[in-house]
Amino acid sequence: MEQLSELVQLVGETHVLIEPALKAQYEEDWRGRFSGVAKAVVRPGSTEELAAVVCWCHEHGVPIIPQGGNTGLCGGAAPDDSATAVILSTERLNKIRAVDTDNDTMVVEAGCVLQVIQEAAAEAGRLFPLSLAAEGSCTIGGNLATNAGGTQVLRYGNARDLVLGLEVVTAQGEIMHGLRGLRKDNTGYDLRNLFIGSEGTLGIITAATLKLFPQPVAQCTAMLALESVEAAIQMLNLARQGFGPALTGFELMGRNCLEAVVDCYPEQRLPFQGPSAELPWYALLELSDSESEAHARERFEAVLGDAFEQGVVADTVIAESGAQSAALWHLRESIPLAERTMGTGIKHDISVPVSSFAAFIEQTNAKIQALMPNIEHVIFGHLGDGNLHYNVMSGTAYTQDELLAKEHDISRLVYDAVHQFSGSISAEHGVGLLKRDELPLYKDPVELKLMRAIKQALDPKNIMNPGKLVDLSRE
Amino acid sequence: MEQLSELVQLVGETHVLIEPALKAQYEEDWRGRFSGVAKAVVRPGSTEELAAVVCWCHEHGVPIIPQGGNTGLCGGAAPDDSATAVILSTERLNKIRAVDTDNDTMVVEAGCVLQVIQEAAAEAGRLFPLSLAAEGSCTIGGNLATNAGGTQVLRYGNARDLVLGLEVVTAQGEIMHGLRGLRKDNTGYDLRNLFIGSEGTLGIITAATLKLFPQPVAQCTAMLALESVEAAIQMLNLARQGFGPALTGFELMGRNCLEAVVDCYPEQRLPFQGPSAELPWYALLELSDSESEAHARERFEAVLGDAFEQGVVADTVIAESGAQSAALWHLRESIPLAERTMGTGIKHDISVPVSSFAAFIEQTNAKIQALMPNIEHVIFGHLGDGNLHYNVMSGTAYTQDELLAKEHDISRLVYDAVHQFSGSISAEHGVGLLKRDELPLYKDPVELKLMRAIKQALDPKNIMNPGKLVDLSRE
Repeated sequence: MEQLSELVQLVGETHVLIEPALKAQYEEDWRGRFSGVAKAVVRPGSTEELAAVVCWCHEHGVPIIPQGGNTGLCGGAAPDDSATAVILSTERLNKIRAVDTDNDTMVVEAGCVLQVIQEAAAEAGRLFPLSLAAEGSCTIGGNLATNAGGTQVLRYGNARDLVLGLEVVTAQGEIMHGLRGLRKDNTGYDLRNLFIGSEGTLGIITAATLKLFPQPVAQCTAMLALESVEAAIQMLNLARQGFGPALTGFELMGRNCLEAVVDCYPEQRLPFQGPSAELPWYALLELSDSESEAHARERFEAVLGDAFEQGVVADTVIAESGAQSAALWHLRESIPLAERTMGTGIKHDISVPVSSFAAFIEQTNAKIQALMPNIEHVIFGHLGDGNLHYNVMSGTAYTQDELLAKEHDISRLVYDAVHQFSGSISAEHGVGLLKRDELPLYKDPVELKLMRAIKQALDPKNIMNPGKLVDLSRE
Repeated sequence: MEQLSELVQLVGETHVLIEPALKAQYEEDWRGRFSGVAKAVVRPGSTEELAAVVCWCHEHGVPIIPQGGNTGLCGGAAPDDSATAVILSTERLNKIRAVDTDNDTMVVEAGCVLQVIQEAAAEAGRLFPLSLAAEGSCTIGGNLATNAGGTQVLRYGNARDLVLGLEVVTAQGEIMHGLRGLRKDNTGYDLRNLFIGSEGTLGIITAATLKLFPQPVAQCTAMLALESVEAAIQMLNLARQGFGPALTGFELMGRNCLEAVVDCYPEQRLPFQGPSAELPWYALLELSDSESEAHARERFEAVLGDAFEQGVVADTVIAESGAQSAALWHLRESIPLAERTMGTGIKHDISVPVSSFAAFIEQTNAKIQALMPNIEHVIFGHLGDGNLHYNVMSGTAYTQDELLAKEHDISRLVYDAVHQFSGSISAEHGVGLLKRDELPLYKDPVELKLMRAIKQALDPKNIMNPGKLVDLSRE
């Protein structure tokens, strides 16, 4: 039987938490949807200490649950009820090791809070573009372990696209020194991308070399009123062609999303009145310019003018100030909270090819209406990335119980449709526990077999976040 | 003993080449530096046929050498002398399966020639930006297997950054159906990036879903005269800040590179005269604009004007026409051929962090001069990507034999310096046979161990391009 006193020797007494009251905040996720009991919570203070803890766990066959800010949505950082696992928190690995403005890189430890990294980049006159709702408390280690998405993906890509190198502690407790700041390096397998998005099941990311970008000089924002999803896709095409890489936001939302926001938050206002306020779809468009306010505005209005003349957009509201721009973004960002007032919801974070969006929505809505007539669809998301939040709400037609009784059928119907359109059942949130058992239904069986082979090769004792993402016991 | 007649049944008689005269062009690389003898060359006509061939090889333990356009520089597609391996050519998998302008993707088979793909994208009004010297004969399968670089990396990234999904035949002959056209998909390990850059040692890429981009509306090109490498890095910073993502080219070259070009090709001319023609460094700068010729020009001149006022650049020549722009690029692209007139060369395709370029060049040049006084340094490359071609030429001071006698010492000195500056000994050409035995000297041992574990997990019989990149026999 392993002795926790050995762990105390490795990291110090105050960083091995055993008391239930001390462990509690690590054992339950922030939404209270996943919880369990850990043997202990261990908080190493350096990569070397963390490696020593993993060595000890490896030797004794103790499961490890890596944890950053504990803000995930799929239960990837939660223990089970067995009290056998150690939660390994990276919170004390929180140093920014270096900022290099000539190389446009920074080296950060896994436990750095995303917002702290954004601010350090800004202080150096650069942009680190990863941005998401939890940025005040999530850590870069968790962002990378789950390949986080967010609002800047259209221009800068997902978390994996923002990384040049990694330091990783393997399942055997060895340190992989891969913190290269190189934009070109063709010397072997891409281990960096293998660890990114592996949800702590192959090793623990302890530090990363991140890419920095120039800060935009000016931004323009508009809300567009649209007759159809097809029109939104035409508008996206015009924006991609007209703005090139200056296109930094294209968010689609249904009319009922905006109406729910103003119902819920009376201080917010609908951007349109009259007939434009009756259209079914709206899009938030953003351009980020590297020249000047005047240039950004001229360019923005030229593309929107063309779109209006071609009949692609029915109406536009262009923000005239930073405050107006913030108000338009605030409408979009308030949708998830306002959604709660529409009743119980069944949520799906999915992606399909942009060219299939219209057909996917039309066909899937129709199938769900056939199952539950007059149910409410709440559809919004990052159209530019092909990522939709496709949610189904009880609305006024059904009670919570009536909806939940059909939850399984509805989700099956949605995921089957996603699969039919060659989409993904988890676009940006990952798999964790939440979708682990869905994965074998939709993932290519050869891909699943390769994933299992890699997991077994890199973690043969299955101690790294066991039971998350890939369930080896079910093979 | 396996029967080749079984292969004939799988792909047809005309596509199993056994005659030496028919095999020859596949058995030697285009520069004549790597050659051997294959048991046969097999040319399947579909992914299913290719999978059947791999199944057969797997069953009989026959080594497979995947081959695209056979234009690699590191011997990755060459057989050894044992006549035991099958060269598996993808040349008949040459269909463009789909072009989707709404999703900005195209699906292409591995044997498609890069230039054919570029042209198909252009016909659809889009840009596929991968561009390199061999584009008229290299195939996308080879480009992806080696994660090719080229001249557009600064803006669009390496080959891996241009791919959304892959179809792969595994070492067991199973087909992985991963041709997703999604910009967001967080459902498991990143198998796509694992196969990209694995040089055919883990499986065979048979098709890919590629990203398409808007075509630029206008481009500006200039040659800059610079006092130092430090000044070049300052200029790169100004260009990154001023042009943002419109910066599409930043190539550095020493004065002797340009002089060699005009010596060799008298129809070409040096861009500068007088004192500017005596400066040690030159840079080719390119901007790609999504608006107009006038806008591109205005923006280009503003940034160059600032750079001149700040004393960062000593002199500039801005191309006044497409022909002048082509002439400036032609100077740059003629360097590798002109280099031959400077004597025998020892070449290194390396990268270091941009911020270390000046120190790397100064220190490494000094060490080489100490070893061989008055030897000629030929230094040029993609400064914006941190990728240099750092070559050492006999010049007039040494004979070919004198230089070659020191080849090992010089390369060791260069690679040691690269390692000291946290760089890469193969920035864009890969490892193959050429650098396989160098890799263990410089790669992190934990990374090497992980690479071997993955190779053994995915190809336990070691039939996929054995002996390339990772040498399992030497463990």
